[in-house]
Amino acid sequence: MVVGGVAAGMSAASRARRRDPDLEIVAYEASSHVSYGSCGLPYLISGQVRRPEDLVVVTPERFKSERNILALTRHEVLAIDPWGRTVTVRDPSGSTFKTEYDVLVLSTGGRASRPPVPGADLTGVFTLRTLDDGIALLEYLRGHAPRRAVIVGAGYIGVEMAEAFRTIGLEVAVVEMLPRPLSNFDPDLSELARAEMERNGVALYFGEPLQALEGDVRVRRVVTPSRTLDADLVLFAGGVRPAATLARDAGIALGPTGAVQVTARMETNVPGIYAAGDVAEVHHLLSDRPAYIPLGSTANKQGRVAGENAAGGDATFPGVVGTAVLKAFGLELARTGLSTDEARQAGFDPVSAVVRHGSRAHYYPGGGRITVKVIADRQSGRLLGAQMAGPEGVAKRIDIFATALHARMTPEEVAELDLSYAPPFAPVWDPVLVAARAAVKELGGSD
Amino acid sequence: MVVGGVAAGMSAASRARRRDPDLEIVAYEASSHVSYGSCGLPYLISGQVRRPEDLVVVTPERFKSERNILALTRHEVLAIDPWGRTVTVRDPSGSTFKTEYDVLVLSTGGRASRPPVPGADLTGVFTLRTLDDGIALLEYLRGHAPRRAVIVGAGYIGVEMAEAFRTIGLEVAVVEMLPRPLSNFDPDLSELARAEMERNGVALYFGEPLQALEGDVRVRRVVTPSRTLDADLVLFAGGVRPAATLARDAGIALGPTGAVQVTARMETNVPGIYAAGDVAEVHHLLSDRPAYIPLGSTANKQGRVAGENAAGGDATFPGVVGTAVLKAFGLELARTGLSTDEARQAGFDPVSAVVRHGSRAHYYPGGGRITVKVIADRQSGRLLGAQMAGPEGVAKRIDIFATALHARMTPEEVAELDLSYAPPFAPVWDPVLVAARAAVKELGGSD
Repeated sequence: MVVGGVAAGMSAASRARRRDPDLEIVAYEASSHVSYGSCGLPYLISGQVRRPEDLVVVTPERFKSERNILALTRHEVLAIDPWGRTVTVRDPSGSTFKTEYDVLVLSTGGRASRPPVPGADLTGVFTLRTLDDGIALLEYLRGHAPRRAVIVGAGYIGVEMAEAFRTIGLEVAVVEMLPRPLSNFDPDLSELARAEMERNGVALYFGEPLQALEGDVRVRRVVTPSRTLDADLVLFAGGVRPAATLARDAGIALGPTGAVQVTARMETNVPGIYAAGDVAEVHHLLSDRPAYIPLGSTANKQGRVAGENAAGGDATFPGVVGTAVLKAFGLELARTGLSTDEARQAGFDPVSAVVRHGSRAHYYPGGGRITVKVIADRQSGRLLGAQMAGPEGVAKRIDIFATALHARMTPEEVAELDLSYAPPFAPVWDPVLVAARAAVKELGGSD
Repeated sequence: MVVGGVAAGMSAASRARRRDPDLEIVAYEASSHVSYGSCGLPYLISGQVRRPEDLVVVTPERFKSERNILALTRHEVLAIDPWGRTVTVRDPSGSTFKTEYDVLVLSTGGRASRPPVPGADLTGVFTLRTLDDGIALLEYLRGHAPRRAVIVGAGYIGVEMAEAFRTIGLEVAVVEMLPRPLSNFDPDLSELARAEMERNGVALYFGEPLQALEGDVRVRRVVTPSRTLDADLVLFAGGVRPAATLARDAGIALGPTGAVQVTARMETNVPGIYAAGDVAEVHHLLSDRPAYIPLGSTANKQGRVAGENAAGGDATFPGVVGTAVLKAFGLELARTGLSTDEARQAGFDPVSAVVRHGSRAHYYPGGGRITVKVIADRQSGRLLGAQMAGPEGVAKRIDIFATALHARMTPEEVAELDLSYAPPFAPVWDPVLVAARAAVKELGGSD
């Protein structure tokens, strides 16, 4: 049985089917859709993805016919009884039933934070987490033709949605409690995102907590301690929390992050129950601690391992190094490993170097300059992380550092990598090599 | 003293200056330019690089004024006497002189193969190796307005020049002795290059050795055993050989590849003489043997190490994993490690897997499918190499495998990498992960 059928859940179901053709597999999903790319929601709003169903990978019909998996939407699991191995489910008619499982994969995902401020339940106030959320927002945009959007939160979703709303011609303001956007980047990289958003006409208000939303039926104003902003659309983009209530109520142990504690086999503390995806913690290979980093790529990997093991296999998911990338208007921003703050919190003594270097040979047309920051541990000399921003060539370049982190390389070793070179794609000294060399110097070595 | 002042040579000179501000540094270069990006020559011909001087990184004037390095063009070193530590130089006037050195960096580069066929010295027959070659070809294009170009050789330069000539509107035929283009790729990848060239109107004749060029003063026809092709421009692109005659005559040992044998410190067998760049061998970290892989990126790295050591330092260049990338019309092609043939020659028992997978999330507009081939050793389970082709996202994706090769990873370890994911840049399962997983299966593991 799978509880929650988006990325991790349906990966688990599919994997379990591949391993065991005879297993009976049912997946309950509270929303109206299973197996969709929720990371694509901003591009549904911007119009780059044309129809909500384009985000769906496999429909319930195809799960049934092609994989013999019963995927039931609008079926909410209300309770898990791990001793009796039963769950209580509410079906679309509103009636509830109990049903048994032998093995359960808990993949209830994350939920969007909804700040408890006055007016949070006005019409025109949205979160963007499920495909249902996306469809509701699209309908509001079509039905009410709002002109002024205020986004509360400047994390990944906040930044991506600022671009999406600008793309469809809205005035956009972003209100963020913290002093900068993308706060899991170092400040110098956040600053590049801030400048890019401003260049694209987004009004930015940092260090301002949300106090209230005002309006009649519809939202009309956003109030912070410093100002009142007109708004006819508000998006809460203040981050994602694990949807772990069901787990906690069932006696499944949560970790220090508030997400479900899991082993490398995706086992919870309760026999017969695995957890995967945005409801679960992930082992961070750099800090060697559990972390909460809800990402679709990780969800799929964890789901695969949970499904394999739920069907009697023995797979493991070693963990992540904290890699992430996003597009912010004309800028690609990426990070991997630990930021300077995270490195300090994990007990390292971080030093860093920042370079700006071309994405292509200096004479080849197009391209631009990439900012690369490399973070290393003064003590051990080990690479701890890297961050990048630039108009192109950032997304997959960060993966060089991600791979180097998995291999526990030093900046010196990164500086000696045999990376691809041709004028349309890189300068003869790739920005990665230049940045690694600068970090070697910071560590006290010869540059 | 630097003998040969393009990539490796001027890197060495610049590095030596950084290490020792007081060193007297002179560089002799036989051609008319120093310190230029010869990899950019195809883009000079295509017009994407507007002027020859755009390829120059640092002029002799700036070497003098900014770095106190005397860079003398059109000064050909005719002989080295390693016992007396002198060289014989011919200056632009044609007169020769002898001069002493304490330490010498030999960086005479590579020379383009010129097949010894009748008619090879006709007007309109070119090689493309130096900036002088590029300028001569440009002048011929402007002065004679040729319509039909025949390229002899379908390696990197042959393929890039087919694109360049098509870009400026020429009819292009390629004649290649071997049965396929880019023969250091596996045949399935070569096939993608072949199809892309054909799609772009290039006539291709494989398995046909060049027999003769015919014409009056200018070249008019290219003759193979199977056909005679009309041509008013012929480019020899049959590969690069080390320009090692000067070295050999001076008693400097050449390796099995015909290039100068060097240590990781870039020392030759002759005290006081270093070698770097396209004249030198490079250590291949996969085969653990010397190889001849002339590339600008390697030349710069070797030059840097030679310069550091020539000035009294102690740097090393561990070697390469065989990474290369090129653009062939709308296709990016990249490789790293050993090809299947190379792996066999190096004593491995290669197995491989090929996948085709999207470069972006399936719902995100643009992008295309990337072909990824992973080669691994059946015996040890070790990753041996990877090759890729696709319309985007290939150049830097190959570097994930390059980094994994440096770290001696297995396909299993690659399949678990935490790679960057966002809809505009990658699908949730990156093609690299999908291909690595397929290779795990080929090796007999669980997929």
